[in-house]
Amino acid sequence: MAGDPHGGLLDRTLANLFRAWSDLSGTTRYHVSGRLRADLPDEDRARVRSEMEACVAAVGDAATNRARAAELGRRYLELDRTGRIRFLLELATGFDRDRDAVDRALAELGACGGDALARREAEQSLHSALEPRWRVLLRQFTTLPEGMKFLVDLRAEMLEAQGEHPEIRFLADDLRTLLSHWFDLGLLDLRRIDWASPARLLEKLIAYEAVHEIRSWEDLKNRLDSDRRCFAFLHPTMPDEPLIFVEVALVNGMAASVDELLDETAPAVDPRTADTAVFYSISNAQRGLDGISFGNFLIRHVVGVLEQELPNLRSFATLSPIPGLSRWVRRQVSEAGTELLTASERRALPIGDVGLPDLLARLEQGDGAMETALREPLTRLAARYLTSARRRGNRAHDPVAHFHLSNGARVERLNWMGDRSVRGRTQSWGLMVNYLYRTGDIAVNSAGYATDGRIAASQAIRSLARD
Amino acid sequence: MAGDPHGGLLDRTLANLFRAWSDLSGTTRYHVSGRLRADLPDEDRARVRSEMEACVAAVGDAATNRARAAELGRRYLELDRTGRIRFLLELATGFDRDRDAVDRALAELGACGGDALARREAEQSLHSALEPRWRVLLRQFTTLPEGMKFLVDLRAEMLEAQGEHPEIRFLADDLRTLLSHWFDLGLLDLRRIDWASPARLLEKLIAYEAVHEIRSWEDLKNRLDSDRRCFAFLHPTMPDEPLIFVEVALVNGMAASVDELLDETAPAVDPRTADTAVFYSISNAQRGLDGISFGNFLIRHVVGVLEQELPNLRSFATLSPIPGLSRWVRRQVSEAGTELLTASERRALPIGDVGLPDLLARLEQGDGAMETALREPLTRLAARYLTSARRRGNRAHDPVAHFHLSNGARVERLNWMGDRSVRGRTQSWGLMVNYLYRTGDIAVNSAGYATDGRIAASQAIRSLARD
Amino acid sequence: MAGDPHGGLLDRTLANLFRAWSDLSGTTRYHVSGRLRADLPDEDRARVRSEMEACVAAVGDAATNRARAAELGRRYLELDRTGRIRFLLELATGFDRDRDAVDRALAELGACGGDALARREAEQSLHSALEPRWRVLLRQFTTLPEGMKFLVDLRAEMLEAQGEHPEIRFLADDLRTLLSHWFDLGLLDLRRIDWASPARLLEKLIAYEAVHEIRSWEDLKNRLDSDRRCFAFLHPTMPDEPLIFVEVALVNGMAASVDELLDETAPAVDPRTADTAVFYSISNAQRGLDGISFGNFLIRHVVGVLEQELPNLRSFATLSPIPGLSRWVRRQVSEAGTELLTASERRALPIGDVGLPDLLARLEQGDGAMETALREPLTRLAARYLTSARRRGNRAHDPVAHFHLSNGARVERLNWMGDRSVRGRTQSWGLMVNYLYRTGDIAVNSAGYATDGRIAASQAIRSLARD
Amino acid sequence: MAGDPHGGLLDRTLANLFRAWSDLSGTTRYHVSGRLRADLPDEDRARVRSEMEACVAAVGDAATNRARAAELGRRYLELDRTGRIRFLLELATGFDRDRDAVDRALAELGACGGDALARREAEQSLHSALEPRWRVLLRQFTTLPEGMKFLVDLRAEMLEAQGEHPEIRFLADDLRTLLSHWFDLGLLDLRRIDWASPARLLEKLIAYEAVHEIRSWEDLKNRLDSDRRCFAFLHPTMPDEPLIFVEVALVNGMAASVDELLDETAPAVDPRTADTAVFYSISNAQRGLDGISFGNFLIRHVVGVLEQELPNLRSFATLSPIPGLSRWVRRQVSEAGTELLTASERRALPIGDVGLPDLLARLEQGDGAMETALREPLTRLAARYLTSARRRGNRAHDPVAHFHLSNGARVERLNWMGDRSVRGRTQSWGLMVNYLYRTGDIAVNSAGYATDGRIAASQAIRSLARD
Repeated sequence: MAGDPHGGLLDRTLANLFRAWSDLSGTTRYHVSGRLRADLPDEDRARVRSEMEACVAAVGDAATNRARAAELGRRYLELDRTGRIRFLLELATGFDRDRDAVDRALAELGACGGDALARREAEQSLHSALEPRWRVLLRQFTTLPEGMKFLVDLRAEMLEAQGEHPEIRFLADDLRTLLSHWFDLGLLDLRRIDWASPARLLEKLIAYEAVHEIRSWEDLKNRLDSDRRCFAFLHPTMPDEPLIFVEVALVNGMAASVDELLDETAPAVDPRTADTAVFYSISNAQRGLDGISFGNFLIRHVVGVLEQELPNLRSFATLSPIPGLSRWVRRQVSEAGTELLTASERRALPIGDVGLPDLLARLEQGDGAMETALREPLTRLAARYLTSARRRGNRAHDPVAHFHLSNGARVERLNWMGDRSVRGRTQSWGLMVNYLYRTGDIAVNSAGYATDGRIAASQAIRSLARD
Repeated sequence: MAGDPHGGLLDRTLANLFRAWSDLSGTTRYHVSGRLRADLPDEDRARVRSEMEACVAAVGDAATNRARAAELGRRYLELDRTGRIRFLLELATGFDRDRDAVDRALAELGACGGDALARREAEQSLHSALEPRWRVLLRQFTTLPEGMKFLVDLRAEMLEAQGEHPEIRFLADDLRTLLSHWFDLGLLDLRRIDWASPARLLEKLIAYEAVHEIRSWEDLKNRLDSDRRCFAFLHPTMPDEPLIFVEVALVNGMAASVDELLDETAPAVDPRTADTAVFYSISNAQRGLDGISFGNFLIRHVVGVLEQELPNLRSFATLSPIPGLSRWVRRQVSEAGTELLTASERRALPIGDVGLPDLLARLEQGDGAMETALREPLTRLAARYLTSARRRGNRAHDPVAHFHLSNGARVERLNWMGDRSVRGRTQSWGLMVNYLYRTGDIAVNSAGYATDGRIAASQAIRSLARD
Repeated sequence: MAGDPHGGLLDRTLANLFRAWSDLSGTTRYHVSGRLRADLPDEDRARVRSEMEACVAAVGDAATNRARAAELGRRYLELDRTGRIRFLLELATGFDRDRDAVDRALAELGACGGDALARREAEQSLHSALEPRWRVLLRQFTTLPEGMKFLVDLRAEMLEAQGEHPEIRFLADDLRTLLSHWFDLGLLDLRRIDWASPARLLEKLIAYEAVHEIRSWEDLKNRLDSDRRCFAFLHPTMPDEPLIFVEVALVNGMAASVDELLDETAPAVDPRTADTAVFYSISNAQRGLDGISFGNFLIRHVVGVLEQELPNLRSFATLSPIPGLSRWVRRQVSEAGTELLTASERRALPIGDVGLPDLLARLEQGDGAMETALREPLTRLAARYLTSARRRGNRAHDPVAHFHLSNGARVERLNWMGDRSVRGRTQSWGLMVNYLYRTGDIAVNSAGYATDGRIAASQAIRSLARD
Repeated sequence: MAGDPHGGLLDRTLANLFRAWSDLSGTTRYHVSGRLRADLPDEDRARVRSEMEACVAAVGDAATNRARAAELGRRYLELDRTGRIRFLLELATGFDRDRDAVDRALAELGACGGDALARREAEQSLHSALEPRWRVLLRQFTTLPEGMKFLVDLRAEMLEAQGEHPEIRFLADDLRTLLSHWFDLGLLDLRRIDWASPARLLEKLIAYEAVHEIRSWEDLKNRLDSDRRCFAFLHPTMPDEPLIFVEVALVNGMAASVDELLDETAPAVDPRTADTAVFYSISNAQRGLDGISFGNFLIRHVVGVLEQELPNLRSFATLSPIPGLSRWVRRQVSEAGTELLTASERRALPIGDVGLPDLLARLEQGDGAMETALREPLTRLAARYLTSARRRGNRAHDPVAHFHLSNGARVERLNWMGDRSVRGRTQSWGLMVNYLYRTGDIAVNSAGYATDGRIAASQAIRSLARD
């Protein structure tokens, strides 16, 4: 929670916007004269509660109600971290579903007997009774200036707080449900981002890039060059805020090294002659939208757009990190020791002297000899990891693998030393993997993975994994 | 259901769009080889059912699932009216909530006892179990080209069908809930429409105007002249489809006659000198969005925009029809006869000869003498109607009055012969009414009306109504 | 000069715009207190002259000078036709080149002797001295609101006036030179016009269509249907004013009848399957730009755009009127009589009784027998007319033929009864012609026509013309 | 001529664009098979000459001619510096006006005698004959992609070359005339530039800022903050290339120090409360447009826009450098010595020891004592400099002063140590000046300066200058 004195993601400048807005709406009488104290002591919390009550009652015309909600939002923004948590707790505990209404609806349902229509009506009433009352308030924010962004960031603050305060979890989950409607895929714009895009949007890419850090505006410009493509989903209410974005390189042959892709001095390829589009970075940008999935659709859309623009493209693949590899291998090593290695690998390595963990540590520190010596065994283990390591529910153990396999891609190729950055070395000794998206196989692959946990992989990967 | 050989609102050309789209998505194997028969006999209905099953199961990646839904949508579009109703019945009855899941969730809830957290979790599960399964399918349409418009028009067809087939009502209601999220006010654009707007959008105004018919492009141009304003709410997925629109005249003094406003030969007023904005027509344009309310917000937004653009505007009022007046007065007459009139009115009218109903009939036929003679008593009765006639729930009897009173306006002035069209004469003997929106009073008026049924009215109207 | 009480093309509402503009610019002291009389009698003309003097002197800052010009423009707009002509005469005669300066420059040039550099400088000075002084004033209009349109329409009024007042011709010609810079092809936008275009622009198409009248908004909508294209050149200063526009039909096989193309009930062709683009109407829209040529470039651009959009298009042709045919044939008839006909044609026609002119008159009146009987001889004469009739300078006699031949097209095919409108029958007995644009031949054809007057034609036309 | 291996401003990548374009236009036969040698030896120059001949002859259709010009442009771009100069020399000397035509026109004019109309016609012919033939070629570039930018940069290369090769000057001057038409003020867009502008445009600001260097994207962002405004003129053919831009700070009271304005850590002012707009930087961005003036108009437009947006603004002033001050003072010192100082100033300064030049040198090196001691005398001399120092033609000696005085501003206030940068210290010992634009005085001020050289100044400045 850096960057704000009160430790919130939500900047307090928004408070002025909300105040200005409710002033303009001519509803000044909702301005409570006194300020709340920043940590919201009980007395002030009681005042907040009665304002929440008024919002949820929602008597009168819609515009007035929304002005009242704006005022309450402004108050939230003026709180410090303690105050904000107390505010959320008040909302989560005081404005959940109406217990009496639920009980009445249950009783009604119980009394229906065999009358199907009556039962259906009673279920309907029960369904309504089970809706938390806070929804009335949350919905009133959508029309405020920056109101949708407010709700997204509010959920991020709920997620942050729910660890310590589990009561908030139901609130956070319910807000996710509302947001999942408002951020339905059908409401998003796929936008190409390039060097002609607004600086205001571009600086968000720099801030949000989660896979391979963007180091400067020059680095960014290189990633938006004529042989690159960048696409994002945007929401109409947040025109300068990407929800998710993907960076693509147009190359000849599947790229093996992200370091080469990010080399600003490398010459640009003529995109009309490229045969492969490599998706080398996908970043979710809004923490408040956690649990709402955009990635599968983004990739499919981008493939469609690129196929139309550049008919010479023959394959669509990723160049992806393997974030879970290192930890998994170490666990295997601690369990199985050198049994993990083949006889010839054991012979080739100076294991007797120091043990496998030490060799891995040397590799991480950049020992060139280890780079050569461990290439084969680690690549082999990585193939095994990606094709057979599992989590509960038969999911692939590696989260990135799970994402692409769900989308219908297959594990295509491993690339030794594809990412020499500190992060790359730490999580996978620099190994990267290409996942391949073949239009004709996607439906079968994704269904097979979803139903039976079948992991699609190239012949080469499968034979590596078997060794 | 005019304008389509199969009697649907949904044009079958959309079927081609859906087919083209799923072709492009590379999922041709979802094309069922044979056509369905247009009236969907049982055998074909069974095929449809199994396709619905596959959609609702939603195994595999999102893009493939949505292509499958597109195919099902295409099939619907190729049906005739009988077939479409059978299709909707299949969906409504075969894909409602899962009864077993509901029962399990109820049992779980019953077993919770006093454990608040466990109960909360159980309520959550019950809430989910109460969601109909058809939602999975309906949601898949949002990303298709024209998919949102498809859903809106699909609901219009459900509304049409539910009279004869009440099973469809639950489906139609549930779709309204989904649409109310996707068409949340926060997602709408307020757009000014003028003579520079796309012809494609303007022709929709001509088609959808519900209050005072637009007779030609010249009539339309006159309504978009420099002393007029027209605003609409649009949805980002339907850029050429107004959801609701309002027509405003900038005038000096509150307008009393819509005939004068629509006179194409009248000279334009300089908008910078006008003191009054008259809202003389508000039309809801999408029948499939019935029950989702945009009007209050539209009016408040437009007032805000106009105040900013034209600081000399002093009042904001409507010039509205009184659709329920004539019927109400006739009922009063049949009950109370000439008791409705004051003594002096009775004296002034030649009632002895023919009775009040005959006089009213003459007036409707344009009898000039009656125009003079009945002006006073009918205006008086109209004032009484608007301020005291009620429906259940203490609502104003007149639907237009109810709308504006809910929004916080007050009944301001009655205008004799404000609308000489056939419709105007039939529903209210040409009487029109101005509702006045005063920013400072809106919150009080709307809350008073909502809670106690208090109807705000000008001094003049109140004293008329008392006579 | 219809449509304005004073008979000008320039609407006086522009005067308010100019006045408002110079007010806003804070240069009110240029408002001359009294109005000018509408016919500009001598006394008022003297006042105008001194205002022109001030404009041309252009002392001080640019913004102030342009405000002064706006005032003068406003005065012009308030004059009647007589007054406007007197205004133009004052400008044309009083603010031409400075005679003394020209004489001085000539003297200087004469004194140069053999010094090349000195002579070059002297020529430069002479060139400047030969520039009329009115240019200073005309240039000041470009930044006014609607100022460029003002200049274009001002030239149209000059063209109208120069017949009676030849002094104005030099002014009109010089303004054409300025406009030819400001409307350089490089500054124009090629814009596709369709049913999503602003109504404000579309109504201009209805007003300006010069070849086949647009009868209604429905007719227009049909011309913008999915199997039609319409493109226009627009100028950045006149966003709703097409300079020239072309209407294209996408068809299979070269269209032979404009009546069929304009039939609103005919079904639309799928543009992706069409093999031919037929340019069936090209209209220049701004009379004030007479003598500045846009047509050649428009056609070439549109061909390029269509080739890219619709790769299945195989040929690009026009369907054109032959405006000069009827008059030319009648002259031939009056000179050569029945010698024009072949022996067999003479035999086939009932000439003996009435003479050729009578037969032609019957045809014009719609005599079905004549339609059959004269088809062959008139088609043959039309081929001869298009390939051999000339004006001075070796130009093709027919103006439409001259336009397309200059552009590099060839005469391809004649179509009997291609245009049954009154105009079509009057100018060419319904005959229409296709000109074919073949990318590979354009350069050779246009150069051949420009240098040697060579007229390119298909084999069929050439053999017809020889008969 | 930095940044290109051949030392040209024009990047050779444009060559590919031109080639691609003429390929697309289907005019491949204009591709000359062999490449030219980069330095254009005589043999190759002869080939260029004959291609120029073909362009200037311009036989045939416009589109083909422009493709031919594109080819010639491509050839130019592939030359090195020597070759480019030889190319320009060929054009300048071989395609100037037609000497014979000029002589014929002069003879005709001489033969006119007293016939006014004949003489007018002859002058017209002479005016045309005096037009250089290269214009035909130059005009053909306007429609090429990036063609207008090509012409602008071509002129920049001409300006660079004309010092050594005076023959090129006539060509460069004539191109300025053409450009002055195509970049007429009426064709420019005033665009506000802010943080939402395309990065592609913003990076040009960084490159072109000529007064106070933009050090980073953060510095740029600060200059586009909510209390800043930046406006540029753009040309429709060069959407990402500002022609001229101005940076404005919204402040309270006239700003005295540019260092404070550029301080990234200073808090932003609420623009709605600011009373003064300070124009602190104006940069011309296109060297090829030297001699075409945009600044006066830009300032006036921006004042108009700001007045409308922020009605609370009371004054509009610059904060400007005084580039000529230091040199002028030193000359005065060398001529008049300490006579420049008043008696009291002389007493206050330790002149006896070192002489005035040494004191000035110390000040330049940042000597704090000198900052105090010289403040008064240098400010006084600056006032005298700005109000009385002149160049030929009665122009103010300081070029920045001349610009603002021509525009109608007045010298308002001097600011000691307003610019502590190296440049600021070097040219004016950190002194800056505010010029004040008062709408009501502009016309009088600019006319007075233009006619009589009257320099407007505040009372304070005038009294300082008199001391």
